[in-house]
Amino acid sequence: MALSLSPNQTHIKSKAAVAWGPGEPLTIEEIDVELPKKGEVLVRIIATGVCHTDAFTLSGEDPEGVFPAVLGHEGGGIVEAVGEGVSSVAVGDHVIPLYTAECGKCKFCTSGKTNLCQAVRETQGKGLMPDGTSRFSKEGKTIYHYMGTSTFSEYTVLPEISLAKINPSAPLEEVCLLGCGVTTGMGAVMNTAKVQEGDTVAIFGLGGIGLSAVIGARMANAGRIIGIDINESKFELAKQLGATDLINPKDYDKPIQEVIVEMTDGGVDYSFECIGNVNVMRQALECCHKGWGESVIIGVSGAGQEISTRPFQLVTGRVWRGTAFGGVKGRSELPDIVERYLAGEFGLQEFITHTMGLSQINDAFDLMHEGKSIRSVVHMDKV
Amino acid sequence: MALSLSPNQTHIKSKAAVAWGPGEPLTIEEIDVELPKKGEVLVRIIATGVCHTDAFTLSGEDPEGVFPAVLGHEGGGIVEAVGEGVSSVAVGDHVIPLYTAECGKCKFCTSGKTNLCQAVRETQGKGLMPDGTSRFSKEGKTIYHYMGTSTFSEYTVLPEISLAKINPSAPLEEVCLLGCGVTTGMGAVMNTAKVQEGDTVAIFGLGGIGLSAVIGARMANAGRIIGIDINESKFELAKQLGATDLINPKDYDKPIQEVIVEMTDGGVDYSFECIGNVNVMRQALECCHKGWGESVIIGVSGAGQEISTRPFQLVTGRVWRGTAFGGVKGRSELPDIVERYLAGEFGLQEFITHTMGLSQINDAFDLMHEGKSIRSVVHMDKV
Repeated sequence: MALSLSPNQTHIKSKAAVAWGPGEPLTIEEIDVELPKKGEVLVRIIATGVCHTDAFTLSGEDPEGVFPAVLGHEGGGIVEAVGEGVSSVAVGDHVIPLYTAECGKCKFCTSGKTNLCQAVRETQGKGLMPDGTSRFSKEGKTIYHYMGTSTFSEYTVLPEISLAKINPSAPLEEVCLLGCGVTTGMGAVMNTAKVQEGDTVAIFGLGGIGLSAVIGARMANAGRIIGIDINESKFELAKQLGATDLINPKDYDKPIQEVIVEMTDGGVDYSFECIGNVNVMRQALECCHKGWGESVIIGVSGAGQEISTRPFQLVTGRVWRGTAFGGVKGRSELPDIVERYLAGEFGLQEFITHTMGLSQINDAFDLMHEGKSIRSVVHMDKV
Repeated sequence: MALSLSPNQTHIKSKAAVAWGPGEPLTIEEIDVELPKKGEVLVRIIATGVCHTDAFTLSGEDPEGVFPAVLGHEGGGIVEAVGEGVSSVAVGDHVIPLYTAECGKCKFCTSGKTNLCQAVRETQGKGLMPDGTSRFSKEGKTIYHYMGTSTFSEYTVLPEISLAKINPSAPLEEVCLLGCGVTTGMGAVMNTAKVQEGDTVAIFGLGGIGLSAVIGARMANAGRIIGIDINESKFELAKQLGATDLINPKDYDKPIQEVIVEMTDGGVDYSFECIGNVNVMRQALECCHKGWGESVIIGVSGAGQEISTRPFQLVTGRVWRGTAFGGVKGRSELPDIVERYLAGEFGLQEFITHTMGLSQINDAFDLMHEGKSIRSVVHMDKV
């Protein structure tokens, strides 16, 4: 299956799902992918999850969204070619693309306080490679990258610092989910909040991120794990994964934060907003325990939307924070999460409600919007 | 000077400044103070600071404000009598009244995570002693307590758990300021934020709290201490106390958070809002460094006012928190702060721009509103 490239070859053909404009369905195209330049890597994507963030950008609400683009950021693949100077991965390595790079050298990487490496942030936000150009085109027309990953393509190009090299025995069709959702939810609980044994946690929204947060809370031995969703079809799986209480805000006349404060004798130790709804973010903060409760925002809200609360909520000891990719440093920490998966510490199959070929990728968006899927995984070799 | 009480005496007379209603000047009255009941202590106030929170309540904006009341919460005094069962303080002890009690037994005190003891919170918020009654009256009409302290009275009654016993060699006319403002500002920096050597901090508002935060930042060996105020008359003292940069938002056309982000190459490690202005709270958060900057709200805003920001500010690593009384546990930690003062680690005289007798207490409010004072201290024995 290894790619054979001729000496003067500059491009390869790749099947890709292209987003031509906001709100339009993706179309399957044969695009041209330029071979990797200095510090870059060509990856053959084996499988990719479809995440709400892809849908958010496709909807047109993402202020950074550029079109046409190859979306997708939750993938697993194999290195097919490396550009000049690439030393940390080699052809044949199994990798997870990272939308948050880890250069190991910038102020952020060396701070010891954050995973938000800024080395390629600026160009990535514009849909470009670090040199300011794109590797994707069709009939000479530029197609943009997305989140530095563009996993909805058979072949994609990434900076070397945006790849986590993982154990090749891990099934890429499953661990692709560690490229975003599952790591984000688990990491928010274990890295960002640092939930301790016996803590009470509330998890708002039981989609892929929320369920991963449930798993993280169970792995942290939280004492009580309260799942909140208005879609009760999510409750059964949440319970299987470790949720101890499941509540539907529609069942109550009063604000859900009051309900939770009452049922927990003062509020939760930690809460997680896994939806991207600014009103829920407020509820998540306000259900925290006075004196020490911390709320972590994971969900991404629409452009221009704002969170609000009375400052008294903070002055009386609640803490409001957020997390991106669960605070996980991709290159140095993600391989270990894959090992924990392989050791059986948590499952991934529970998340995969649907699989499909690339040509059915629009179905994955429909299933998500209809609330019918946790995660759809596109298998590139599936027809 | 010790009080001599006859066996059947139930009340003593006390000179007090009474707030009869919102917005009205205080009037000096001879009130009746009931002797301490079980678990209570009669304290003769030697000196008391006048704080913005007193003015806030007097203005009528404080939703918990009840009238008529004896305001004041930043005092120093001497124990004159103790009620049944009081064992931790005795007649003659020097004490600082605490608006945040420390019972040592409640869920909050035993959590190890907060100083917000709730033992007397409910009655305190209603202007009453823990048994639900007041010790103050005039001609049979009830006068309410305030913040559990009511230091604008020659004699006041407090729960035993609301008194910090301090070194009697400390001048009460100065360490009274440790009963609120100075401890709040210093504690916010050292206890709540835990500023480390070399950190960059921004302090919004250079009144008593803000200047105390400057002192705290200097004591923590912060690398850069940026003071922000629209009243430049505060700059000289702030500089003396340790501020390295002083900026006036009125000198800039762009939002002050942008100015600070630029001058600090990305933002500050910690910021402190010492005003109580919800717009400034947002500026303070948004001037923090992506990835790790933390903003601490110290100021108390008006009823119903709300803070807002884009959730992206938190998702990209900023943290929003608050503090009350600088996170300091009054009975167990305040005596040590008094010792550090006595050891010369920081000064208090710099804060005291005016002193006066109780009869001139309204002048203290005027000076504060005019921005002319840092702290006015009322000496009870001054005419």
